[in-house]
Amino acid sequence: MNEFADSSQRKFTRPLDVERGRVDMTHGGGGRAMAQLISEIFAAAFDNPYLAQGNDMAVMPAATGRLVMSTDGYVISPLFFPGGDIGSLAVHGTINDVSMSGARALYLSASFIIEEGFPLADLKRIVQSMARASTEAGVPVVTGDTKVVERGKADGIFISTAGVGVLVDDLSISGDAIRPGDAVIISGSIGDHGVAILSKRENLDFETAIESDSAPLNGLVAAMVEAEPSIHCLRDPTRGGVAATLNELAHQSGVGFVLDEDALPIKPAVRGACELLGIDPLGIANEGKLLAFCPAEKAEALLRVMNAHPLGRDAAVIGQAVADDSRLVRLSTSFGSERVVEWLNGEQLPRIC
Amino acid sequence: MNEFADSSQRKFTRPLDVERGRVDMTHGGGGRAMAQLISEIFAAAFDNPYLAQGNDMAVMPAATGRLVMSTDGYVISPLFFPGGDIGSLAVHGTINDVSMSGARALYLSASFIIEEGFPLADLKRIVQSMARASTEAGVPVVTGDTKVVERGKADGIFISTAGVGVLVDDLSISGDAIRPGDAVIISGSIGDHGVAILSKRENLDFETAIESDSAPLNGLVAAMVEAEPSIHCLRDPTRGGVAATLNELAHQSGVGFVLDEDALPIKPAVRGACELLGIDPLGIANEGKLLAFCPAEKAEALLRVMNAHPLGRDAAVIGQAVADDSRLVRLSTSFGSERVVEWLNGEQLPRIC
Repeated sequence: MNEFADSSQRKFTRPLDVERGRVDMTHGGGGRAMAQLISEIFAAAFDNPYLAQGNDMAVMPAATGRLVMSTDGYVISPLFFPGGDIGSLAVHGTINDVSMSGARALYLSASFIIEEGFPLADLKRIVQSMARASTEAGVPVVTGDTKVVERGKADGIFISTAGVGVLVDDLSISGDAIRPGDAVIISGSIGDHGVAILSKRENLDFETAIESDSAPLNGLVAAMVEAEPSIHCLRDPTRGGVAATLNELAHQSGVGFVLDEDALPIKPAVRGACELLGIDPLGIANEGKLLAFCPAEKAEALLRVMNAHPLGRDAAVIGQAVADDSRLVRLSTSFGSERVVEWLNGEQLPRIC
Repeated sequence: MNEFADSSQRKFTRPLDVERGRVDMTHGGGGRAMAQLISEIFAAAFDNPYLAQGNDMAVMPAATGRLVMSTDGYVISPLFFPGGDIGSLAVHGTINDVSMSGARALYLSASFIIEEGFPLADLKRIVQSMARASTEAGVPVVTGDTKVVERGKADGIFISTAGVGVLVDDLSISGDAIRPGDAVIISGSIGDHGVAILSKRENLDFETAIESDSAPLNGLVAAMVEAEPSIHCLRDPTRGGVAATLNELAHQSGVGFVLDEDALPIKPAVRGACELLGIDPLGIANEGKLLAFCPAEKAEALLRVMNAHPLGRDAAVIGQAVADDSRLVRLSTSFGSERVVEWLNGEQLPRIC
């Protein structure tokens, strides 16, 4: 489907009552009520020539390079959080996944599943946030779909986005390409997103407001691969945080990692919140950060490029890949001791990304 | 994310108890439990070199032609129905949307949202059905994502797929390209899918089992555009059926339509079920049918090509586009009278496609 286009050119008797109205089952039925919802909420926000084609698919120009594709489902609770909402997150997250190949993200699709009774005002706010994030990142939402399910059959709203990009250069950036000796670089502070969501969920009032780091990393990646095409791997430490990402990569590349605790950029407010909540900042989702792995001798130059970009200002080398048949992720603590950073079993922190 | 790849190469202590087990929150947490679910259910079924890259995105070869993209969310109830299930439907529906541009569908992504407590056996059955449908259509699922939400926050399972294709030829097939005089062709019998779902939902036992027509139309479309590149428009009459599709196209192209009731291919069992349920076969979803619009003088040749394909065997000319400032869809009945085919307001038949 491609339902964000106002293809019907119809006039409706009365405009939607966005302020007080709610989504009902007719908005997902394929008829006139759905056409009005699309026209007044979606088409009004996602305005681009591909959507305006008004067909069940979007046709874009030919693009040079290998095709790259990714998808992600967003089921977060709460829907609105300091620094973003499910709409901006659904744009950033998928752009970032496409970008982690070194590709240039080109287009997004968006599939909405909405619970009957969901406030039209919230829907409009989410769609507008999504459109703004898409415009800022330069990656348009070219096609979409809306389904409505009965009350009690969803949790407000779920959004699945897919992204397509092209990989022009002769890059081979992959999770299995990390080699012992590679530097491990993080693009900035960790834990911000997870703590922002949790603080909202638990109604915690921290002295310093902690905002999600949700951001599109396509610009940062473009600068990085242009400067250092020798990058071995890029990955954004979302669900499961840096801990899950490094453990997964250790197995994929057949290496171990040693991190330096003192080098980890963690904001004091995030550190404090983690202590209060009893969680490890390494295990929490980030939505605007990436881990980069490159030959040690390239690390300094790469870091300079990252530090020059607004989203890499606090980038730092936090450790290195090592030869390790046990594929362990170890953390050297400030006291000179060492602990193993476990791959959590997954019980912790559901639905924060 | 790209979570259908068994990138971790891990061994798990015990295999999943697929027969009696259920999805729990840990399966969506990004940790070890999720890795096991991915490995034993998803990676086992969706086996292709793109998934095997094991990254958060899939990198495919460069492809020549304009890019085409579409997405659709599948929230049907019941999940299993005569002739298919939510898995096969999620593959066919999105391939069909991409194909309606005349493009060759190349790749699919799949985003799963699963309710805690969902039986692993059902999940496996759905994933295997999806993999089979994808293989049969020749369009691999190259990337995916899985999220788990708490019990009562979804309805078993929702799947959103996105599809990418390329449009090589100099085609301009679009919803706004229909001209007065164009022949309206349907590729086969209407109403089968909607009635199959409804009969299962209402526990109706019809004498003749009615099966969904769910099928991938990419092969049929390829044959059609090769033979007759002059096709003006293709569209699959899913949600809202032929009635909604023609009403939408009437407005998009600025024409009216006149259909011949006697020419509509409707299976006797479907006709009977519609009478019993009090619904109009023109208003029900189809999942393996397309409407084609072409210059009248090309209709016979196009019909021959369609009839030669297994999915177009019962294709028939069912009417024509006419000049009509009111954009009406009219049906000439067998009695020589005429009725207007309304664009339903959408209350009818939610969640059948």
